[in-house]
Amino acid sequence: MNNYLSQVLNQIKPLDSKAIEAARARQNELTKPRGSLGRLEELSIRIAGIKSEIIRGFNYKAIITMAADHGVVEEGVTLYPQEVTKQMVFNFLNGGAGISVLSRLVGARSIVVDMGVVGGFEPHPNLICKMIDFGTRNMTREPAMTRQQALDSIESGIAVVEAEIVKGLDIVGTGDMGIGNTTASSAIAAAITGKPAEKITGRGEGIDNEQLAHKINVVQRALDVNKPDSHDPIDVLSKVGGFEIGGLAGVMLGAAAHRVPIVIDGFISGAAALIATGLAPALKDYLIAAHLSAESGHEVLLQHLGLTPLLSLNMRLGEGTGAALGIAIVEAAVSTLAGMATFAEAGVSQVQKEAE
Amino acid sequence: MNNYLSQVLNQIKPLDSKAIEAARARQNELTKPRGSLGRLEELSIRIAGIKSEIIRGFNYKAIITMAADHGVVEEGVTLYPQEVTKQMVFNFLNGGAGISVLSRLVGARSIVVDMGVVGGFEPHPNLICKMIDFGTRNMTREPAMTRQQALDSIESGIAVVEAEIVKGLDIVGTGDMGIGNTTASSAIAAAITGKPAEKITGRGEGIDNEQLAHKINVVQRALDVNKPDSHDPIDVLSKVGGFEIGGLAGVMLGAAAHRVPIVIDGFISGAAALIATGLAPALKDYLIAAHLSAESGHEVLLQHLGLTPLLSLNMRLGEGTGAALGIAIVEAAVSTLAGMATFAEAGVSQVQKEAE
Repeated sequence: MNNYLSQVLNQIKPLDSKAIEAARARQNELTKPRGSLGRLEELSIRIAGIKSEIIRGFNYKAIITMAADHGVVEEGVTLYPQEVTKQMVFNFLNGGAGISVLSRLVGARSIVVDMGVVGGFEPHPNLICKMIDFGTRNMTREPAMTRQQALDSIESGIAVVEAEIVKGLDIVGTGDMGIGNTTASSAIAAAITGKPAEKITGRGEGIDNEQLAHKINVVQRALDVNKPDSHDPIDVLSKVGGFEIGGLAGVMLGAAAHRVPIVIDGFISGAAALIATGLAPALKDYLIAAHLSAESGHEVLLQHLGLTPLLSLNMRLGEGTGAALGIAIVEAAVSTLAGMATFAEAGVSQVQKEAE
Repeated sequence: MNNYLSQVLNQIKPLDSKAIEAARARQNELTKPRGSLGRLEELSIRIAGIKSEIIRGFNYKAIITMAADHGVVEEGVTLYPQEVTKQMVFNFLNGGAGISVLSRLVGARSIVVDMGVVGGFEPHPNLICKMIDFGTRNMTREPAMTRQQALDSIESGIAVVEAEIVKGLDIVGTGDMGIGNTTASSAIAAAITGKPAEKITGRGEGIDNEQLAHKINVVQRALDVNKPDSHDPIDVLSKVGGFEIGGLAGVMLGAAAHRVPIVIDGFISGAAALIATGLAPALKDYLIAAHLSAESGHEVLLQHLGLTPLLSLNMRLGEGTGAALGIAIVEAAVSTLAGMATFAEAGVSQVQKEAE
């Protein structure tokens, strides 16, 4: 394993138990029945454990959306043509996509990264170029990428997030764009969770039953041809993954190494989290699952990760749109913990006999 | 029925089907797979139907939190002493409560109304006084209030929201504060839905099994003593309701009469919605259920209303805290519909054969 990656993996530490204790104690002093803010309380306590302190809010929020193409689209697994990946990157840069609108709404910067879109891009002030190759190869015939490319994609993701952390990034959301990437994500999820392809393969942008049966077959062939080693996340990524998926795994690892909480989007971010937590199990506590995607298979994937999604709004757009909403919920959690008055401060009577 | 109330009830009209059609057509032109924003799409379409146009966002958001006391606390149904209602109103006014923090976070004004808190308040610039009486009477012995007080509480709520609509309010959240008000809400819900008291009575601030059995008994006694007429919402409100519950029903009716969407909080707002939709069935389409409360009985109540909650975060604080988060989701819905580019605008290729 490369030096840079090893270093980052070693930097990922367990949450700060003292900060967790302090946050929990403060929650129980706030002017509300104990536990009555439900998951906001849990979240606020976890964020304190990540940050090693009770914070008042976030100063620099960003959603990193990584784009790349997939050779497997040759197999006819998608509704949209491959050129849509590139077209949507321009839509991100022009502020017209779902993630553009929602990141503005929650006050997060939308950061767009080319991890390997077919055709590439001219230099653009708002596009970060970490292009590994012009799309992966067709994983039903050969590995999607080389082992070195898999490592490069992860390290590129680390570099992207570290460059923002230097500028003060203190919470990050992850998002994706890549025609064909639910197929790759299904293959990753099947390889790592051991679930059969039909359990973990969904309709992507909205394919019908016949197309779904074909897609399941494609996922299964990719697994049969490449035989990814479920105990070696880099092997899985290289054989049936994608450049944006590797990049997102890197974003997660890099963020956790610097104690920055990560709000993960849907199915593709979930597949990246499988790769990343395989490399660093301690990462899990830094991950917040924004929502349960409508993509079937996402639930199985989140269960494997041991994450409970915050939202369930039947969304399946990707791009980081779920993560944007998730960040708003995390902010609510953090601001109530820091901003609410205690019983003593507010002069509010406490309960005589506490139920807990 | 009073003239003012009748007028408002008559003003509540069905949603605008032309605006709904236009919003749905636009959703299908936006740069995303059809339906991929899930409930955000549905919501955005409904808001267009409420507003009679596709709007870009909200100019003046507010959460109206109504407080009152309940005579039934004599029966020992709560953990906190009655004085906490008044103390929490000061906490709202001082900005230290959960709703204070969350309304700031979502950019909504927190409007606090005394509908009948024991002891009352000195005049305060940020407290609206609509006091009906110093708390209701003990509903296990007599009606909680007179029929005239029930009407007055509803009309007061209408007046509160209309005063804000004049200032430009274009979305409203509802919230409550009142020690004992889950008991009153359970009695309302049982009376109107016909479900047995034990199905609809929960743990409020966190009572134990023995206390819960007692609370169910109290709810049942209130129903037996008063025999509220399930077909007469004013009768139900007067016999087993509360002043803040009547006030919130009025807020909902007044808002809908002026085509302002209403994001309802948890169990108490739900009970108010039962009263309000009983008076004006067309109101239902103006109501957005922010979240599923941890208070058992809330689910049954929402099913009766035909509303599906947006969030499920195990919250049960009340005050409008769930509504604040719900408003953030509604804003996400509205801003994606108005702010995203269409396929044509962005030059993104459409799918060849659409799945739907």
